[in-house]
Amino acid sequence: MNKNKGLEDTGLSSKFQTHTQRIIDRNGNFNVLKTGIGKLESFNLYHYLINESWGKFFFHSLVFYVLTNIVFSFAYYLAGVEHLGIEVSQGFFHSFINAFFFSAQTLTTVGFGRVNPQNFSTNVIATLEAGIGLMVFAIATGLLYGRFSRPATNIKYSSNAIITKWENGLSAFQFRLANAYSTVMMDAELKVMASWLETDNGEEKRKFYTLKLEYDKIVFFPSMWTANHIIDESSPMYGKTQEDFHKSEAEFLILFKAYDDTFIQTVNSRYSYRHDEILWGVKFARGILTNDGGQLLIDLERLNLTEKIEN
Amino acid sequence: MNKNKGLEDTGLSSKFQTHTQRIIDRNGNFNVLKTGIGKLESFNLYHYLINESWGKFFFHSLVFYVLTNIVFSFAYYLAGVEHLGIEVSQGFFHSFINAFFFSAQTLTTVGFGRVNPQNFSTNVIATLEAGIGLMVFAIATGLLYGRFSRPATNIKYSSNAIITKWENGLSAFQFRLANAYSTVMMDAELKVMASWLETDNGEEKRKFYTLKLEYDKIVFFPSMWTANHIIDESSPMYGKTQEDFHKSEAEFLILFKAYDDTFIQTVNSRYSYRHDEILWGVKFARGILTNDGGQLLIDLERLNLTEKIEN
Amino acid sequence: MNKNKGLEDTGLSSKFQTHTQRIIDRNGNFNVLKTGIGKLESFNLYHYLINESWGKFFFHSLVFYVLTNIVFSFAYYLAGVEHLGIEVSQGFFHSFINAFFFSAQTLTTVGFGRVNPQNFSTNVIATLEAGIGLMVFAIATGLLYGRFSRPATNIKYSSNAIITKWENGLSAFQFRLANAYSTVMMDAELKVMASWLETDNGEEKRKFYTLKLEYDKIVFFPSMWTANHIIDESSPMYGKTQEDFHKSEAEFLILFKAYDDTFIQTVNSRYSYRHDEILWGVKFARGILTNDGGQLLIDLERLNLTEKIEN
Amino acid sequence: MNKNKGLEDTGLSSKFQTHTQRIIDRNGNFNVLKTGIGKLESFNLYHYLINESWGKFFFHSLVFYVLTNIVFSFAYYLAGVEHLGIEVSQGFFHSFINAFFFSAQTLTTVGFGRVNPQNFSTNVIATLEAGIGLMVFAIATGLLYGRFSRPATNIKYSSNAIITKWENGLSAFQFRLANAYSTVMMDAELKVMASWLETDNGEEKRKFYTLKLEYDKIVFFPSMWTANHIIDESSPMYGKTQEDFHKSEAEFLILFKAYDDTFIQTVNSRYSYRHDEILWGVKFARGILTNDGGQLLIDLERLNLTEKIEN
Repeated sequence: MNKNKGLEDTGLSSKFQTHTQRIIDRNGNFNVLKTGIGKLESFNLYHYLINESWGKFFFHSLVFYVLTNIVFSFAYYLAGVEHLGIEVSQGFFHSFINAFFFSAQTLTTVGFGRVNPQNFSTNVIATLEAGIGLMVFAIATGLLYGRFSRPATNIKYSSNAIITKWENGLSAFQFRLANAYSTVMMDAELKVMASWLETDNGEEKRKFYTLKLEYDKIVFFPSMWTANHIIDESSPMYGKTQEDFHKSEAEFLILFKAYDDTFIQTVNSRYSYRHDEILWGVKFARGILTNDGGQLLIDLERLNLTEKIEN
Repeated sequence: MNKNKGLEDTGLSSKFQTHTQRIIDRNGNFNVLKTGIGKLESFNLYHYLINESWGKFFFHSLVFYVLTNIVFSFAYYLAGVEHLGIEVSQGFFHSFINAFFFSAQTLTTVGFGRVNPQNFSTNVIATLEAGIGLMVFAIATGLLYGRFSRPATNIKYSSNAIITKWENGLSAFQFRLANAYSTVMMDAELKVMASWLETDNGEEKRKFYTLKLEYDKIVFFPSMWTANHIIDESSPMYGKTQEDFHKSEAEFLILFKAYDDTFIQTVNSRYSYRHDEILWGVKFARGILTNDGGQLLIDLERLNLTEKIEN
Repeated sequence: MNKNKGLEDTGLSSKFQTHTQRIIDRNGNFNVLKTGIGKLESFNLYHYLINESWGKFFFHSLVFYVLTNIVFSFAYYLAGVEHLGIEVSQGFFHSFINAFFFSAQTLTTVGFGRVNPQNFSTNVIATLEAGIGLMVFAIATGLLYGRFSRPATNIKYSSNAIITKWENGLSAFQFRLANAYSTVMMDAELKVMASWLETDNGEEKRKFYTLKLEYDKIVFFPSMWTANHIIDESSPMYGKTQEDFHKSEAEFLILFKAYDDTFIQTVNSRYSYRHDEILWGVKFARGILTNDGGQLLIDLERLNLTEKIEN
Repeated sequence: MNKNKGLEDTGLSSKFQTHTQRIIDRNGNFNVLKTGIGKLESFNLYHYLINESWGKFFFHSLVFYVLTNIVFSFAYYLAGVEHLGIEVSQGFFHSFINAFFFSAQTLTTVGFGRVNPQNFSTNVIATLEAGIGLMVFAIATGLLYGRFSRPATNIKYSSNAIITKWENGLSAFQFRLANAYSTVMMDAELKVMASWLETDNGEEKRKFYTLKLEYDKIVFFPSMWTANHIIDESSPMYGKTQEDFHKSEAEFLILFKAYDDTFIQTVNSRYSYRHDEILWGVKFARGILTNDGGQLLIDLERLNLTEKIEN
């Protein structure tokens, strides 16, 4: 990407009203509304079922389980529950509820057999239920396992980014991150974009700039990583003050990627710092120590620890 | 790829009869016929079962389920259904249909047990059916889940590409796209190829050129992306008129790739614009707005919105 | 890789006895023997079960199924099959075979229930069998589906590579390939290595060279690809004759990779040409035609078609 | 990465107490302690279940199976086991243990049916157990298969790295590796980092350097690979003696990646050499031979074989 000419209307786009909300929220999701498309067309069932909360997922599974059984219970009821060996003299509720239990036994293939299909119509229904139902059940099970085994990351970011002193009278933009899980991460990669409002031909537009990091890739990521962008003449941040960032509603977007040895996959994590989450004139305290045995010690509580810069 | 020397006979190849159909159809598939290879050799069962429509898939599953049960029903019939506890005095159809139901109960492992194998031969068949059948059933189930959880994209492209004014008296080739799903997409990438007939040594050949985009990669793709190819001297489109593109049957092939956070995988989308789907002398209307709360608002209906260029 | 200094002892290595077999066999496997490591240490059960033939896989599954049931049958026999409701007066074989059938019904969870555990010991065994057995059975099922859904390619290579005429009095090394499946392939990539014996300090060593292709990546691969290595001064093949390749036992190793839209994964294919599979002084006949409707027509039988070069 | 300026505080970080343990242990894991984060927050259940030993995994599965059944047994007991058809006159233990066996039959869906739910409350519990339990069981099964089918590598490294003679009076740092499995590996890649203590402004810090390899990527990896870093002026190892490496507690970290054709995935392997595992003034003996049939022969026992350098 062109570093010195802000990116406009590409991906994250330009020309907003003056005051915008943060673009990436604390959970790493985009804070974007989409209109002009039908609900149905923008909806993907798999997306939904993988991303909903565990509570909702279990609730939806239960509802589906019960509803499916109710549908089949009606079918058995219509076919005559006496052909399942259910006593019909005890009224509708008794018949229906026992058809329901039989349906559940068929759907899950537990098939105890005390209640069982004894004529043509109930056998046809049971054959269908065991077949189709088993497949639907398998999807629920697959989804459950899919959710459980989904690559998860727990990357902790320092709660503030900082503008700190650098060599040769320059400043640097820094933040820190660490892997809170004990997984082995390799080939880690950071991409950082700065974004702020700019006046261009009298119009106020939001522009996006890629920030060059001193190191944007590391081979091993066992501990803590201090991302470092040196604010020299080639930086879009060069010459800007704390006041400038407040006025222009600056936000710094972060994309972290790494290969995780547990999931055997590339995982990612997103974060952003708003202009009011940046500390000026401090430096990060040491975050990595060694214990008495000479072993590396990563103290995640120190991730946020900054120190005043002495002159 | 060499930008100024058209690619010939590599991948998408040269030397056609004058009038060709579109190369990439509206669904993103290649419009290509293959001959000279046996049906069986070019056929992959998994390919087929993953790509057929849901209707066909369910129909094929049902047919397979019924056929498998019919095969095993015959086996039980030959072994003697009286050894399953089925009343044989009611004729062939009664025996067979009950063997069929028993087979279904065994195949799905529901195993109610009222009907059950009671001698050696029926037990052997049931043992085989429960074992082998379970595995085949599991494949169907796996396929069903595999189809359901397959990475799906819903990338919307502007219905027209445009040739618009650019700086310094140049023109630009542009089109727009947006993610109609609410999924988080990162590391998005666009590749665009132009293709047209050219006369080379008196022979008319179809040539392919890679179009250089102003930005061909973006880190985050939450909203709308305007792809922009500047038609300067280095562009193969330089100096060509609308008439030229019609005559040479130009087509612009697009490959979009992005990392989708729901599928934890790189997904892709293909599209193409034919010469008659390109508007000249217009520009795209703003597609991204902010609502009152300052939140980004992507209006997908505006994706196709173009405006006349005022002079 | 250094193009002009042959690669030695790196990956595919040097210093052989004079006459070597082909390095990559017709199935794309390495023709390499490994010694100095225990059978057990070099063996990976999953590797084996995924790669063995379908016939062997089904046979092994059957053997495993039968053996597992035999083991549990013995356990039931020792616990007393009368507690399963099996008539013991008819001798060992009757008892054992019925225990075997019961075991199969438990392992597959079909559980008909006519025979069922009625005391403590048989119940404990059945509880274990249903639990552990179900998991083992699930692995077999998973393997079966894993094998079935494994990315498969059917890349056809021209049966001969050729040395053909090129511009400016140069020659070119070419071969052709096509995707025999009807799958959509994108971002295809070719890597070609040449390998031959060389005399270096009086020792005969096998050296490996990377061949630079005119195009080594293509965006779309719907049809036929003619790989083209121009033999100019920078090529390690420059100045060598047909005789040289025979004497030095030349072999050309090919790695093809592409993203397959059905498997949503990068697939690969390997091939090699030996010195005696290279035709000199011919050119490839056109492989891609259009039919009357203007649709691209790939004739795979023409893949191997070469024509004499006219002067 | 900047080759001549040691990397500090990035990923693997600086400023330790003088004596540090090895950074990558023999199993390829990072030797790092994390503090300052709650147990629960750093714990990922899937991570744990995928990475624990097979023994522990089976034990945990068994415990879970038994506990789940105990919970449901209590539920049935409370609902009244007489409604399952269990004889209650024989006391609590008899009732409970039979409820336990029934629970196991329901959880695994084997459902023999002799014992079966006969009133409302037991039917509700059984319906829940068969449904929920089946899904939990499926997770265990999925995990089992997931563990079994996880990409595994068996890369053997020479037990020592060596400092050997190179051309032009230079030395080279070398080690060897081979794939002990018979899998086909392609696009193999090596990354090597050197790390030692340095005195910088009076402070002793651990610095990290990337070592440039003669070849860091190979297309095919069927045999043995000798990694070779030439110690010329551009190398951070230039001019250092064996004594220097001992004093500065040097460690060489290795990351190997390759595409494995069995797992259809990129696999990786990590290793490290400490200063005391480096042999000086030797060279590797030939590791690759050909047998009488002219086939490549990789002798893994020769991986470690070094020879004295003759002058």
